[in-house]
Amino acid sequence: MRLPQYVRALTQILEQGTEVVSSQQLGQQIQVTPAQIRKDLSYFGRFGKQGRGYTVRYLLEALSHILGLDREWQVGVVGVGRLGRAILSYPGFGPEGFSVAAAFDADPRQVGQMVGGIMVQPVHRMQEVLEETGIRIAIVAVPASEAQEVVDRLVESGIRAIINYAPISAQVPPHVTVRNIDPVLALQSLTYYLR
Amino acid sequence: MRLPQYVRALTQILEQGTEVVSSQQLGQQIQVTPAQIRKDLSYFGRFGKQGRGYTVRYLLEALSHILGLDREWQVGVVGVGRLGRAILSYPGFGPEGFSVAAAFDADPRQVGQMVGGIMVQPVHRMQEVLEETGIRIAIVAVPASEAQEVVDRLVESGIRAIINYAPISAQVPPHVTVRNIDPVLALQSLTYYLR
Repeated sequence: MRLPQYVRALTQILEQGTEVVSSQQLGQQIQVTPAQIRKDLSYFGRFGKQGRGYTVRYLLEALSHILGLDREWQVGVVGVGRLGRAILSYPGFGPEGFSVAAAFDADPRQVGQMVGGIMVQPVHRMQEVLEETGIRIAIVAVPASEAQEVVDRLVESGIRAIINYAPISAQVPPHVTVRNIDPVLALQSLTYYLR
Repeated sequence: MRLPQYVRALTQILEQGTEVVSSQQLGQQIQVTPAQIRKDLSYFGRFGKQGRGYTVRYLLEALSHILGLDREWQVGVVGVGRLGRAILSYPGFGPEGFSVAAAFDADPRQVGQMVGGIMVQPVHRMQEVLEETGIRIAIVAVPASEAQEVVDRLVESGIRAIINYAPISAQVPPHVTVRNIDPVLALQSLTYYLR
Protein backbone atom coordinates (compact mmCIF):
# COMPACT_ATOMS: atom_id res chain seq x y z
CA MET A 1 0.00 0.00 0.00
CA ARG A 2 2.00 2.92 -1.34
CA LEU A 3 -0.78 5.54 -1.48
CA PRO A 4 0.14 7.12 1.89
CA GLN A 5 3.65 7.78 0.53
CA TYR A 6 2.08 9.47 -2.50
CA VAL A 7 -0.01 11.67 -0.21
CA ARG A 8 3.08 12.68 1.75
CA ALA A 9 5.14 13.39 -1.38
CA LEU A 10 2.30 15.36 -3.02
CA THR A 11 1.89 17.44 0.15
CA GLN A 12 5.60 18.32 0.06
CA ILE A 13 5.38 19.11 -3.68
CA LEU A 14 2.37 21.36 -3.15
CA GLU A 15 4.11 23.18 -0.28
CA GLN A 16 6.98 23.90 -2.66
CA GLY A 17 4.48 25.66 -4.95
CA THR A 18 4.43 23.07 -7.74
CA GLU A 19 0.96 22.67 -9.29
CA VAL A 20 1.51 19.97 -11.90
CA VAL A 21 3.76 16.94 -11.46
CA SER A 22 4.87 14.18 -13.84
CA SER A 23 5.10 10.48 -12.89
CA GLN A 24 8.88 10.92 -13.27
CA GLN A 25 9.06 13.70 -10.67
CA LEU A 26 6.68 11.95 -8.29
CA GLY A 27 8.56 8.69 -8.74
CA GLN A 28 11.89 10.30 -7.99
CA GLN A 29 10.57 11.69 -4.72
CA ILE A 30 9.43 8.31 -3.40
CA GLN A 31 11.87 6.08 -5.27
CA VAL A 32 9.33 4.24 -7.40
CA THR A 33 9.40 3.91 -11.20
CA PRO A 34 7.01 6.13 -13.23
CA ALA A 35 5.44 2.95 -14.66
CA GLN A 36 4.69 1.69 -11.14
CA ILE A 37 3.10 5.03 -10.24
CA ARG A 38 0.82 4.94 -13.28
CA LYS A 39 -0.11 1.36 -12.40
CA ASP A 40 -0.76 2.12 -8.71
CA LEU A 41 -2.96 5.10 -9.57
CA SER A 42 -4.85 3.43 -12.43
CA TYR A 43 -6.20 0.96 -9.88
CA PHE A 44 -8.16 3.79 -8.23
CA GLY A 45 -9.24 5.91 -11.19
CA ARG A 46 -8.05 8.25 -13.92
CA PHE A 47 -6.07 11.10 -12.42
CA GLY A 48 -4.08 12.60 -15.29
CA LYS A 49 -3.93 12.99 -19.04
CA GLN A 50 -1.27 11.28 -21.10
CA GLY A 51 1.76 13.58 -21.38
CA ARG A 52 0.34 16.33 -19.17
CA GLY A 53 1.19 15.13 -15.67
CA TYR A 54 -1.04 15.26 -12.62
CA THR A 55 -2.66 18.32 -11.06
CA VAL A 56 -1.08 18.10 -7.61
CA ARG A 57 -3.97 19.54 -5.60
CA TYR A 58 -6.58 17.38 -7.34
CA LEU A 59 -4.56 14.15 -7.03
CA LEU A 60 -3.80 14.89 -3.37
CA GLU A 61 -7.49 15.45 -2.56
CA ALA A 62 -8.57 12.35 -4.45
CA LEU A 63 -6.00 10.08 -2.77
CA SER A 64 -6.74 11.56 0.66
CA HIS A 65 -10.41 10.77 0.12
CA ILE A 66 -9.65 7.23 -1.07
CA LEU A 67 -7.54 6.63 2.05
CA GLY A 68 -10.17 8.13 4.35
CA LEU A 69 -7.81 10.92 5.40
CA ASP A 70 -10.37 13.70 4.99
CA ARG A 71 -11.75 13.04 8.47
CA GLU A 72 -10.33 12.60 11.97
CA TRP A 73 -9.61 9.15 13.39
CA GLN A 74 -9.40 8.30 17.06
CA VAL A 75 -6.75 5.85 18.16
CA GLY A 76 -6.28 3.79 21.34
CA VAL A 77 -2.82 2.91 22.67
CA VAL A 78 -2.19 -0.23 24.73
CA GLY A 79 1.00 -0.26 26.80
CA VAL A 80 2.56 2.90 28.21
CA GLY A 81 6.14 1.81 28.78
CA ARG A 82 8.97 3.78 27.15
CA LEU A 83 7.68 3.12 23.64
CA GLY A 84 4.03 3.75 24.52
CA ARG A 85 5.00 7.04 26.14
CA ALA A 86 6.96 8.09 23.06
CA ILE A 87 3.86 7.29 20.96
CA LEU A 88 1.49 9.17 23.29
CA SER A 89 3.75 12.23 23.17
CA TYR A 90 4.46 12.07 19.42
CA PRO A 91 3.45 15.40 17.84
CA GLY A 92 3.17 13.92 14.33
CA PHE A 93 -0.28 12.29 14.63
CA GLY A 94 -2.49 15.36 15.18
CA PRO A 95 -1.62 17.27 12.00
CA GLU A 96 -2.36 14.10 9.98
CA GLY A 97 -5.82 13.65 11.44
CA PHE A 98 -5.10 10.99 14.07
CA SER A 99 -5.80 11.72 17.72
CA VAL A 100 -4.89 9.39 20.54
CA ALA A 101 -8.12 9.25 22.53
CA ALA A 102 -7.44 6.44 25.04
CA ALA A 103 -4.47 4.69 26.65
CA PHE A 104 -4.36 1.46 28.62
CA ASP A 105 -1.85 -0.41 30.74
CA ALA A 106 -1.94 -3.52 32.90
CA ASP A 107 0.46 -2.06 35.49
CA PRO A 108 -1.45 -0.41 38.38
CA ARG A 109 1.45 2.06 38.80
CA GLN A 110 0.81 3.44 35.31
CA VAL A 111 -2.98 3.59 35.66
CA GLY A 112 -4.28 7.08 36.50
CA GLN A 113 -1.14 8.83 35.23
CA MET A 114 -1.45 11.54 32.61
CA VAL A 115 0.74 10.86 29.56
CA GLY A 116 0.63 13.19 26.56
CA GLY A 117 -2.63 14.67 27.86
CA ILE A 118 -4.36 11.29 28.19
CA MET A 119 -5.16 9.50 31.44
CA VAL A 120 -3.94 5.90 31.44
CA GLN A 121 -6.79 3.46 32.12
CA PRO A 122 -6.62 -0.11 33.40
CA VAL A 123 -6.50 -2.73 30.67
CA HIS A 124 -9.52 -4.52 32.17
CA ARG A 125 -11.65 -1.49 31.16
CA MET A 126 -10.38 -1.61 27.58
CA GLN A 127 -13.37 -3.30 25.96
CA GLU A 128 -15.87 -1.04 27.69
CA VAL A 129 -13.98 2.17 26.78
CA LEU A 130 -13.33 1.16 23.17
CA GLU A 131 -16.96 0.21 22.63
CA GLU A 132 -18.23 3.44 24.24
CA THR A 133 -15.92 5.69 22.24
CA GLY A 134 -16.26 3.73 18.98
CA ILE A 135 -12.47 3.69 18.53
CA ARG A 136 -11.59 1.23 15.75
CA ILE A 137 -7.81 1.73 15.49
CA ALA A 138 -5.35 0.58 18.16
CA ILE A 139 -1.60 0.76 18.62
CA VAL A 140 -0.08 -2.16 20.55
CA ALA A 141 3.08 -1.30 22.47
CA VAL A 142 3.24 -4.15 24.99
CA PRO A 143 5.98 -6.79 25.39
CA ALA A 144 5.97 -9.72 22.96
CA SER A 145 4.75 -12.13 25.65
CA GLU A 146 1.50 -10.18 26.10
CA ALA A 147 0.91 -8.99 22.57
CA GLN A 148 -1.27 -11.77 21.13
CA GLU A 149 -3.59 -11.69 24.15
CA VAL A 150 -3.93 -7.92 23.85
CA VAL A 151 -4.61 -8.25 20.12
CA ASP A 152 -7.31 -10.86 20.79
CA ARG A 153 -9.01 -8.57 23.28
CA LEU A 154 -8.81 -5.62 20.91
CA VAL A 155 -10.49 -7.68 18.20
CA GLU A 156 -13.24 -8.65 20.66
CA SER A 157 -13.66 -4.95 21.46
CA GLY A 158 -14.47 -4.04 17.86
CA ILE A 159 -11.00 -2.85 16.79
CA ARG A 160 -10.59 -3.27 13.01
CA ALA A 161 -7.07 -1.93 12.44
CA ILE A 162 -3.95 -2.50 14.52
CA ILE A 163 -0.43 -1.12 14.49
CA ASN A 164 1.65 -3.73 16.30
CA TYR A 165 5.02 -2.72 17.74
CA ALA A 166 5.57 -6.04 19.55
CA PRO A 167 8.02 -8.41 17.83
CA ILE A 168 5.47 -11.12 16.98
CA SER A 169 3.34 -11.96 13.93
CA ALA A 170 -0.02 -11.19 15.51
CA GLN A 171 -2.81 -13.50 14.37
CA VAL A 172 -6.11 -11.77 13.56
CA PRO A 173 -9.36 -12.69 11.81
CA PRO A 174 -9.75 -11.61 8.15
CA HIS A 175 -11.83 -8.51 8.93
CA VAL A 176 -8.97 -6.99 10.95
CA THR A 177 -5.84 -5.48 9.37
CA VAL A 178 -2.48 -5.40 11.14
CA ARG A 179 0.65 -3.42 10.32
CA ASN A 180 3.75 -4.57 12.16
CA ILE A 181 6.32 -1.93 13.06
CA ASP A 182 9.43 -3.79 14.09
CA PRO A 183 12.93 -2.30 14.07
CA VAL A 184 14.56 -5.75 14.36
CA LEU A 185 12.87 -7.00 11.17
CA ALA A 186 13.89 -3.75 9.47
CA LEU A 187 17.50 -4.18 10.66
CA GLN A 188 17.52 -7.80 9.51
CA SER A 189 16.39 -6.78 6.05
CA LEU A 190 19.28 -4.29 5.88
CA THR A 191 22.15 -6.56 6.88
CA TYR A 192 21.49 -8.58 3.73
CA TYR A 193 22.90 -5.64 1.77
CA LEU A 194 25.95 -5.29 4.03
CA ARG A 195 27.45 -8.76 3.99
CA MET B 1 12.14 -8.48 1.72
CA ARG B 2 10.20 -11.10 3.66
CA LEU B 3 13.12 -13.31 4.74
CA PRO B 4 13.41 -11.74 8.22
CA GLN B 5 9.79 -12.72 8.87
CA TYR B 6 10.63 -16.27 7.81
CA VAL B 7 13.54 -16.31 10.26
CA ARG B 8 11.30 -15.13 13.07
CA ALA B 9 8.54 -17.65 12.25
CA LEU B 10 11.02 -20.54 11.93
CA THR B 11 12.59 -19.63 15.27
CA GLN B 12 9.14 -19.79 16.90
CA ILE B 13 8.38 -23.09 15.15
CA LEU B 14 11.70 -24.59 16.29
CA GLU B 15 11.07 -23.45 19.87
CA GLN B 16 7.75 -25.32 19.75
CA GLY B 17 9.71 -28.48 18.95
CA THR B 18 8.65 -28.83 15.31
CA GLU B 19 11.44 -30.15 13.09
CA VAL B 20 9.84 -30.24 9.64
CA VAL B 21 7.43 -27.62 8.32
CA SER B 22 5.36 -27.39 5.13
CA SER B 23 4.93 -24.23 3.05
CA GLN B 24 1.29 -24.32 4.19
CA GLN B 25 2.22 -24.21 7.89
CA LEU B 26 4.93 -21.61 7.40
CA GLY B 27 2.59 -19.53 5.24
CA GLN B 28 -0.15 -19.60 7.82
CA GLN B 29 2.21 -18.30 10.48
CA ILE B 30 3.24 -15.23 8.49
CA GLN B 31 0.09 -14.81 6.40
CA VAL B 32 1.67 -15.49 3.00
CA THR B 33 0.47 -18.06 0.44
CA PRO B 34 2.45 -21.33 0.16
CA ALA B 35 3.14 -20.47 -3.50
CA GLN B 36 4.69 -17.15 -2.49
CA ILE B 37 6.87 -18.91 0.08
CA ARG B 38 8.18 -21.38 -2.49
CA LYS B 39 8.84 -18.48 -4.86
CA ASP B 40 10.63 -16.36 -2.21
CA LEU B 41 12.85 -19.25 -1.16
CA SER B 42 13.63 -20.50 -4.67
CA TYR B 43 15.32 -17.17 -5.31
CA PHE B 44 18.00 -18.07 -2.77
CA GLY B 45 18.47 -21.79 -3.32
CA ARG B 46 16.85 -25.21 -2.92
CA PHE B 47 15.77 -25.76 0.65
CA GLY B 48 13.25 -28.59 0.56
CA LYS B 49 12.11 -31.58 -1.41
CA GLN B 50 8.74 -31.63 -3.19
CA GLY B 51 6.09 -32.95 -0.82
CA ARG B 52 8.44 -33.37 2.16
CA GLY B 53 8.46 -29.89 3.67
CA TYR B 54 11.45 -28.00 5.03
CA THR B 55 13.83 -29.09 7.78
CA VAL B 56 13.29 -26.18 10.17
CA ARG B 57 16.79 -26.02 11.65
CA TYR B 58 18.50 -26.21 8.26
CA LEU B 59 16.25 -23.60 6.63
CA LEU B 60 16.67 -21.29 9.64
CA GLU B 61 20.47 -21.54 9.51
CA ALA B 62 20.57 -21.03 5.75
CA LEU B 63 18.31 -17.97 5.83
CA SER B 64 20.18 -16.49 8.81
CA HIS B 65 23.40 -16.84 6.86
CA ILE B 66 21.90 -15.28 3.73
CA LEU B 67 20.70 -12.32 5.78
CA GLY B 68 24.05 -11.96 7.57
CA LEU B 69 22.45 -12.70 10.93
CA ASP B 70 25.14 -15.19 12.02
CA ARG B 71 27.35 -12.36 13.27
CA GLU B 72 26.93 -9.30 15.47
CA TRP B 73 26.20 -5.86 14.01
CA GLN B 74 26.94 -2.57 15.68
CA VAL B 75 24.41 0.21 15.28
CA GLY B 76 24.61 3.98 15.81
CA VAL B 77 21.58 5.99 16.96
CA VAL B 78 21.16 9.68 16.07
CA GLY B 79 18.73 11.65 18.23
CA VAL B 80 18.04 10.81 21.86
CA GLY B 81 14.67 12.43 22.41
CA ARG B 82 11.77 10.30 23.67
CA LEU B 83 11.91 7.96 20.69
CA GLY B 84 15.72 7.71 20.65
CA ARG B 85 15.68 6.86 24.34
CA ALA B 86 13.08 4.14 23.81
CA ILE B 87 15.32 2.72 21.06
CA LEU B 88 18.47 2.88 23.21
CA SER B 89 16.69 1.07 26.03
CA TYR B 90 14.93 -1.50 23.83
CA PRO B 91 15.86 -5.00 25.03
CA GLY B 92 14.95 -6.66 21.73
CA PHE B 93 18.10 -5.82 19.73
CA GLY B 94 20.76 -7.72 21.70
CA PRO B 95 19.27 -11.22 21.44
CA GLU B 96 18.97 -10.71 17.64
CA GLY B 97 22.63 -9.78 17.22
CA PHE B 98 22.34 -6.00 17.06
CA SER B 99 24.14 -3.86 19.63
CA VAL B 100 23.78 -0.12 19.88
CA ALA B 101 27.39 1.02 20.07
CA ALA B 102 27.11 4.81 19.71
CA ALA B 103 24.52 7.55 20.25
CA PHE B 104 24.56 11.15 19.09
CA ASP B 105 22.54 14.29 19.71
CA ALA B 106 22.82 17.93 18.70
CA ASP B 107 21.47 19.20 22.04
CA PRO B 108 24.31 19.99 24.50
CA ARG B 109 21.99 19.06 27.40
CA GLN B 110 21.80 15.47 26.10
CA VAL B 111 25.52 15.13 25.36
CA GLY B 112 27.43 13.28 28.08
CA GLN B 113 24.32 11.60 29.49
CA MET B 114 24.22 7.81 29.81
CA VAL B 115 21.18 6.29 28.07
CA GLY B 116 20.74 2.53 27.94
CA GLY B 117 24.39 2.09 28.91
CA ILE B 118 25.69 4.35 26.10
CA MET B 119 27.15 7.83 26.54
CA VAL B 120 25.54 10.36 24.23
CA GLN B 121 28.12 12.10 22.03
CA PRO B 122 27.84 15.43 20.22
CA VAL B 123 26.63 15.16 16.65
CA HIS B 124 29.71 17.06 15.39
CA ARG B 125 31.83 14.04 16.42
CA MET B 126 29.60 11.62 14.48
CA GLN B 127 31.74 11.16 11.40
CA GLU B 128 34.91 10.61 13.44
CA VAL B 129 33.27 8.07 15.78
CA LEU B 130 31.50 6.16 13.01
CA GLU B 131 34.66 5.89 10.95
CA GLU B 132 36.75 4.78 13.96
CA THR B 133 34.26 2.13 15.05
CA GLY B 134 33.42 0.96 11.52
CA ILE B 135 29.69 1.15 12.27
CA ARG B 136 27.74 0.84 9.03
CA ILE B 137 24.15 0.81 10.29
CA ALA B 138 22.41 3.86 11.77
CA ILE B 139 19.01 4.59 13.25
CA VAL B 140 17.73 8.14 12.69
CA ALA B 141 15.38 9.41 15.41
CA VAL B 142 15.58 13.18 14.89
CA PRO B 143 12.75 15.59 13.95
CA ALA B 144 11.68 15.72 10.29
CA SER B 145 13.31 19.13 9.81
CA GLU B 146 16.77 17.77 10.61
CA ALA B 147 16.48 14.28 9.17
CA GLN B 148 17.78 14.77 5.61
CA GLU B 149 20.85 16.66 6.86
CA VAL B 150 21.59 13.90 9.37
CA VAL B 151 21.13 11.26 6.66
CA ASP B 152 23.55 13.13 4.36
CA ARG B 153 26.18 13.24 7.11
CA LEU B 154 25.69 9.54 7.90
CA VAL B 155 26.24 8.68 4.25
CA GLU B 156 29.44 10.79 4.25
CA SER B 157 30.53 8.87 7.36
CA GLY B 158 30.39 5.50 5.60
CA ILE B 159 26.96 4.39 6.80
CA ARG B 160 25.42 1.93 4.31
CA ALA B 161 22.10 1.07 5.96
CA ILE B 162 19.65 3.41 7.67
CA ILE B 163 16.48 2.95 9.66
CA ASN B 164 14.68 6.27 9.42
CA TYR B 165 12.00 7.11 12.01
CA ALA B 166 11.58 10.71 10.81
CA PRO B 167 8.45 11.31 8.70
CA ILE B 168 10.27 12.16 5.46
CA SER B 169 11.33 10.17 2.38
CA ALA B 170 15.07 10.39 2.97
CA GLN B 171 17.10 10.72 -0.23
CA VAL B 172 20.23 8.54 -0.37
CA PRO B 173 22.71 7.43 -3.06
CA PRO B 174 22.17 3.96 -4.60
CA HIS B 175 24.79 2.21 -2.41
CA VAL B 176 22.83 3.08 0.76
CA THR B 177 19.61 1.30 1.79
CA VAL B 178 16.92 3.00 3.88
CA ARG B 179 13.96 1.51 5.71
CA ASN B 180 11.39 4.03 6.88
CA ILE B 181 9.54 3.30 10.09
CA ASP B 182 6.63 5.68 10.22
CA PRO B 183 3.50 5.13 12.30
CA VAL B 184 1.59 7.83 10.40
CA LEU B 185 2.13 6.09 7.04
CA ALA B 186 1.10 2.82 8.69
CA LEU B 187 -2.06 4.43 10.12
CA GLN B 188 -2.88 5.99 6.75
CA SER B 189 -2.64 2.61 5.06
CA LEU B 190 -5.12 1.21 7.62
CA THR B 191 -7.85 3.81 7.36
CA TYR B 192 -8.39 2.74 3.76
CA TYR B 193 -9.88 -0.48 5.14
CA LEU B 194 -12.10 1.35 7.65
CA ARG B 195 -13.99 3.80 5.48
